Amino acid sequence: MERVIEIRGHIIRDDILKKIDSSVVQYNGRYRVLQLEVGDQVEDESTARIALDLPEDKIELILNELINLGCTIPRNEEAATLKPAEKDKTVPDDFYSTTNHPTEVYLNGKWVRVKYQRMDACLVVKGDEVHCVKLRDIKKGDLIVCGSSGVRLVIPPAEERGNEFAFMSNEVSSERRVEVIVKRLAEEMRQLKQKGGKIVFVAGPVVIHTGGGEAFQSLIRKGYVHALLSGNALAVHDIERALFGTSLGVNLDTGSIVRGGHKNHMRAINAINRSGSIAEAVADGTLKSGIMYECVKKGVPFVLAGSIRDDGPLPDTLMDLIEAQAQYAEQVADADLVIMLSTMLHAIGTGNMMPSWIKTVCVDINPAVVTKLMDRGSSQTIGVVTDVGLFLTMLEKQLP
Amino acid sequence: MERVIEIRGHIIRDDILKKIDSSVVQYNGRYRVLQLEVGDQVEDESTARIALDLPEDKIELILNELINLGCTIPRNEEAATLKPAEKDKTVPDDFYSTTNHPTEVYLNGKWVRVKYQRMDACLVVKGDEVHCVKLRDIKKGDLIVCGSSGVRLVIPPAEERGNEFAFMSNEVSSERRVEVIVKRLAEEMRQLKQKGGKIVFVAGPVVIHTGGGEAFQSLIRKGYVHALLSGNALAVHDIERALFGTSLGVNLDTGSIVRGGHKNHMRAINAINRSGSIAEAVADGTLKSGIMYECVKKGVPFVLAGSIRDDGPLPDTLMDLIEAQAQYAEQVADADLVIMLSTMLHAIGTGNMMPSWIKTVCVDINPAVVTKLMDRGSSQTIGVVTDVGLFLTMLEKQLP
Amino acid sequence: MERVIEIRGHIIRDDILKKIDSSVVQYNGRYRVLQLEVGDQVEDESTARIALDLPEDKIELILNELINLGCTIPRNEEAATLKPAEKDKTVPDDFYSTTNHPTEVYLNGKWVRVKYQRMDACLVVKGDEVHCVKLRDIKKGDLIVCGSSGVRLVIPPAEERGNEFAFMSNEVSSERRVEVIVKRLAEEMRQLKQKGGKIVFVAGPVVIHTGGGEAFQSLIRKGYVHALLSGNALAVHDIERALFGTSLGVNLDTGSIVRGGHKNHMRAINAINRSGSIAEAVADGTLKSGIMYECVKKGVPFVLAGSIRDDGPLPDTLMDLIEAQAQYAEQVADADLVIMLSTMLHAIGTGNMMPSWIKTVCVDINPAVVTKLMDRGSSQTIGVVTDVGLFLTMLEKQLP
Amino acid sequence: MERVIEIRGHIIRDDILKKIDSSVVQYNGRYRVLQLEVGDQVEDESTARIALDLPEDKIELILNELINLGCTIPRNEEAATLKPAEKDKTVPDDFYSTTNHPTEVYLNGKWVRVKYQRMDACLVVKGDEVHCVKLRDIKKGDLIVCGSSGVRLVIPPAEERGNEFAFMSNEVSSERRVEVIVKRLAEEMRQLKQKGGKIVFVAGPVVIHTGGGEAFQSLIRKGYVHALLSGNALAVHDIERALFGTSLGVNLDTGSIVRGGHKNHMRAINAINRSGSIAEAVADGTLKSGIMYECVKKGVPFVLAGSIRDDGPLPDTLMDLIEAQAQYAEQVADADLVIMLSTMLHAIGTGNMMPSWIKTVCVDINPAVVTKLMDRGSSQTIGVVTDVGLFLTMLEKQLP
Repeated sequence: MERVIEIRGHIIRDDILKKIDSSVVQYNGRYRVLQLEVGDQVEDESTARIALDLPEDKIELILNELINLGCTIPRNEEAATLKPAEKDKTVPDDFYSTTNHPTEVYLNGKWVRVKYQRMDACLVVKGDEVHCVKLRDIKKGDLIVCGSSGVRLVIPPAEERGNEFAFMSNEVSSERRVEVIVKRLAEEMRQLKQKGGKIVFVAGPVVIHTGGGEAFQSLIRKGYVHALLSGNALAVHDIERALFGTSLGVNLDTGSIVRGGHKNHMRAINAINRSGSIAEAVADGTLKSGIMYECVKKGVPFVLAGSIRDDGPLPDTLMDLIEAQAQYAEQVADADLVIMLSTMLHAIGTGNMMPSWIKTVCVDINPAVVTKLMDRGSSQTIGVVTDVGLFLTMLEKQLP
Repeated sequence: MERVIEIRGHIIRDDILKKIDSSVVQYNGRYRVLQLEVGDQVEDESTARIALDLPEDKIELILNELINLGCTIPRNEEAATLKPAEKDKTVPDDFYSTTNHPTEVYLNGKWVRVKYQRMDACLVVKGDEVHCVKLRDIKKGDLIVCGSSGVRLVIPPAEERGNEFAFMSNEVSSERRVEVIVKRLAEEMRQLKQKGGKIVFVAGPVVIHTGGGEAFQSLIRKGYVHALLSGNALAVHDIERALFGTSLGVNLDTGSIVRGGHKNHMRAINAINRSGSIAEAVADGTLKSGIMYECVKKGVPFVLAGSIRDDGPLPDTLMDLIEAQAQYAEQVADADLVIMLSTMLHAIGTGNMMPSWIKTVCVDINPAVVTKLMDRGSSQTIGVVTDVGLFLTMLEKQLP
Repeated sequence: MERVIEIRGHIIRDDILKKIDSSVVQYNGRYRVLQLEVGDQVEDESTARIALDLPEDKIELILNELINLGCTIPRNEEAATLKPAEKDKTVPDDFYSTTNHPTEVYLNGKWVRVKYQRMDACLVVKGDEVHCVKLRDIKKGDLIVCGSSGVRLVIPPAEERGNEFAFMSNEVSSERRVEVIVKRLAEEMRQLKQKGGKIVFVAGPVVIHTGGGEAFQSLIRKGYVHALLSGNALAVHDIERALFGTSLGVNLDTGSIVRGGHKNHMRAINAINRSGSIAEAVADGTLKSGIMYECVKKGVPFVLAGSIRDDGPLPDTLMDLIEAQAQYAEQVADADLVIMLSTMLHAIGTGNMMPSWIKTVCVDINPAVVTKLMDRGSSQTIGVVTDVGLFLTMLEKQLP
Repeated sequence: MERVIEIRGHIIRDDILKKIDSSVVQYNGRYRVLQLEVGDQVEDESTARIALDLPEDKIELILNELINLGCTIPRNEEAATLKPAEKDKTVPDDFYSTTNHPTEVYLNGKWVRVKYQRMDACLVVKGDEVHCVKLRDIKKGDLIVCGSSGVRLVIPPAEERGNEFAFMSNEVSSERRVEVIVKRLAEEMRQLKQKGGKIVFVAGPVVIHTGGGEAFQSLIRKGYVHALLSGNALAVHDIERALFGTSLGVNLDTGSIVRGGHKNHMRAINAINRSGSIAEAVADGTLKSGIMYECVKKGVPFVLAGSIRDDGPLPDTLMDLIEAQAQYAEQVADADLVIMLSTMLHAIGTGNMMPSWIKTVCVDINPAVVTKLMDRGSSQTIGVVTDVGLFLTMLEKQLP
């Protein structure tokens, strides 16, 4: 039996009809576009009426998808369907799965803005509020928003987003005007610093290997880094460089291979272990320079997430990933700008936790990293395919 | 003041003189080759006498390095220097840092073979034994082998290693005869199965995306997989495929993009959460096919190490990496062959824990992954740059 | 002053409104969508009326673009505008620039199908016919189709194209089911062979280095290769392998590096020079095996295009690229299937010459090659990211 | 029967014994190192006596190889063996195949320095001189140096080469200190300009796409570019940018995609065709800016080599590759520094023609390009893996 749905949204700009088409085909159903009223411009909102010939539960999946694409479904100004979680970490099968876009739920006759927005979470009603909750944090009895009724995204129009980066396409290419991007980003950082905004860096060890270490240290000193999210490797390579002038066997000043260099890696960890922590190593005079040193001196919080490949690790590295994810999430919660430098693992990890309205720049010499991040859903990301060391050097020169 | 050292080893084959040269240059010292007696063949052992003009502690670092390269230093048949660890996780600065090669320590008048061999560890004397101990497991008072006296590697000659793979160079290239390698590997696996050897697979989700899932499942059923080391992603993608026919939004049978597919990712985790674990999901009939299903059915142990980017994760995924590393290490401890499939993170993690005498094959479409693994010290690795799905399909066909 | 245009075509499927939007924005103009009548399905044709506020010559550029996207512009059933070429190799500025899709020109009251269709050419009226002519072949006085009146594309609906490959998305990814693609391609090749179709291979030397040489030779012997388009390198490496068992210094049977191997490269060319040509070397018994040998024996035409980096080259290699392009074009003119194996340069060169209705498969281990080919306009291409040697081995096994 | 050879050279530094080992193994022979006298340092020359058990012609091949590696073979101060070419483009099978290193031939009782040194050529005696001659330029009756007697390389010691770049290792890595390299290169360029040296650039279109166009134009104006070797693409993209502000469909100022942009590619060629050539287009006012414009204005010679994938091409593009190679070779013959920017094809083509004593820098975002160039024999190349646009921008700022 056919059911007619009405939708309103950026039907042309966001390829909504094609997306309905592919969803319906996937579920072996049929559809007809009954009516399509387009705005004057491609950017304008349009409305459509579409007849769907599909089982009801599949229609619900498609509606969930359409909502996640920013469509308004007029008839969905009805109370959201709430069902209790049957046990911890488990929700009903038709739970509404979130995007990282701003979302509202219709509760008690009005639209309520969701808190702690992030992708791939459940919506849990807590009194008057609705929270994004990760599956693993669901408790038995939590009220879960199910189906698609009473849920909508409230994506602001592009012009209101005040996106200074709007001119930059999301396209990933090594064939881009990096210099222009550096200037725009520096301008954005200057403004954020003035108004007390928060800039979070997510950085991998390539920052050091490409010679970007000193520029990055200068950015910390100048007050442009308000949190550093990374892993064990960046910190160990940085400390190894500070203590022995090497980084995993490469003399960074001459570029020559250093024999016994890998041993320096372990000696660096040993030195911090002796002090007790990175901060204590700064305090007792063991660590006198480098990125981690500058963070400690400037009071910039850092979170080092462990990984299965970590040697050591440093005493500051969190090998409990539940704790690491929690501390990452806390740092990005109030961020205004996130700059990701050459680390796919930590970039995707951070992207998973962030709402889409935080400006994000991802710099990597490998285009696949940037593409993968955006494919994962962090579509707000501006990808820059370039040499991270040069990028930081140029960025630092633009900042007073 | 010059000190004359004598060394014996594969001086020509292993570029020992060049390595001494670069070490000495790094420490601003000087050296002279006083004598070099070479064997008939490049593969033969040679002896050399070299005068070093360097501070004593730098000479020690070079001797440590030379030992790690397999040289014997005649005068070092002296008791090893032992010093107590001053506190937990902390060793004296001149600690001997291990390789993954078989090592012996001279204790109480005889050479003792080191247990639990792995790279980047310390040597701790425990009664009559010497153990490789990771820095983080060092306890205050542990007796640490320091300097280079009384330590030697005992690398067997190539012919004794009985390496069926010997014909394959370690060179990494996409321009290789993959078919030949598949045949040799299949032969090796057949022999190992016959004599009750242990084959450990380290696998990433690309195994599924490249269509290698069914071949891999068949390998499990046929008894060629004795442990599976992986992360959350492989298991979730596999279970998603088993439950919904998709894998992160790709319909694997038709290759087309599936709308709402990412939701299936979370639905798969939810389903396992409901059962309690992967094994329970197999037991209660929720999970009826796939790689994880075959592992449970066949009793193949698997270890899923968490990462900062994991959604969910599955209840089986270890988010405590200390525990994850311990379980990985347990599985490789008695492995005869380790096959790494398209996962840089887990491959390097596993490589860190393994002694060099375990045969290792690393398959990846990206040459950089294989190179990085070997640069890290897992030089025994045979790198194969190819399509993992095709590789598994061909391998499976060679095995009865 | 506004002008209203009407278009008919796959407005939704092909993102026509978004393309008009970006063109108009580029020319600093404005537009309004006055009306949009969509079909039932996304695949169906729709009609639109759009008011454009733009200089007339810019409207012409947009109309040219819309025609190239497959739109019909009802008012354009008027005689095409013809202007003479002012001199050799030079056309009027508003010349109609072709796509590789089937095109018709309205001449003397009827639509005439264009001959020698290829992209980036001019349309020249020659009596009753219209030909695609490359800029460099334009002669003074040639009648050039200018502007957009009287030109349309006639792209057949997908179902009529009878595309056995339709199920395969164009998406490029190393995470694909290569085995399925091999089967479909084998089926297509069997059918083509039965009905006397023509299969053209474009191949680079990686075919040999990845161990695909023998499979490819078998494909030639079995009659599945009807022309080979390549460069100097494939032929030299193949002949070097046949004469000395090496290929640029690699022993292909053992994989080991061969000293003096590069000299063999020059010795191979010298041997063919002595005979006079590849065919004469087969005739006089110098060349007794390999890809080039099989081509000669089976009478398969081959074209070797030179490049600036060619040593030698072989006497068969065409260092005059005008001639090489002509011979390539002749081979693809009547092709039914073109299979491109690991050679970006020759693949793009061939793609430039082909109409879009020839089925094209491009196999490369590097996803960027496939992407670049499709970005250039060869959008009909099915990209397969895999190991070319294994691909050929599996393909050959599927063919009787 | 064993034959004893004596060699002198950088036996340790250049791995000579290992190379003899692999050559002998390849030919199924045997060898014994009878004696090895090493210098004090790894860099010093050593001497060795080695017994070879191999057929005489194989020994000759090995001697040829050893000479190419820089060894002196004391007994080879005998007249070189000369044999006439039996026909055009054909030499005796045992011809001596050259490297790109400085070479001398023993003729009439003295060592004669070879002219026109390049790799993969034959040595032809012309009166008192010896010339490197490409196989295709050999004429019947030319006197060809055969075997290995009477040939030696005369590679100057590293310190005499006065290599300002000596500190930079040849290692290819994206993890390098690009900024340091830029400074050294700028210093080298300043010095060369002062003493009237010649700097040749080999450049691909990525120079433009990465935003390096303006910096490169400035380098031309400032007098740091003395020849430009490239292909059709760089020139067309540059001219398209100058005439229409686009480059293959990308608006370079805003980064947005330009509809109809590909047509601009053909319109640019058409415009130059109308003028007759690039120089004439500058003269008649058609072309007013860009890289090609600056070359014409400054009188910098440029050579555009054609390729099988070229559209158009421009009237200046040489589609006859024999001519293109000749003009490339003429420009590099007296070069002091060659800088290769993001073009594997033209970089390898140029590398083939150059003697090893010309300093060479190769910049590319893809490490494989740099590696491939060096593997081909251009081992003098300093590889820089970075963003070419940023590289040029920084280089230009360092130059007055």
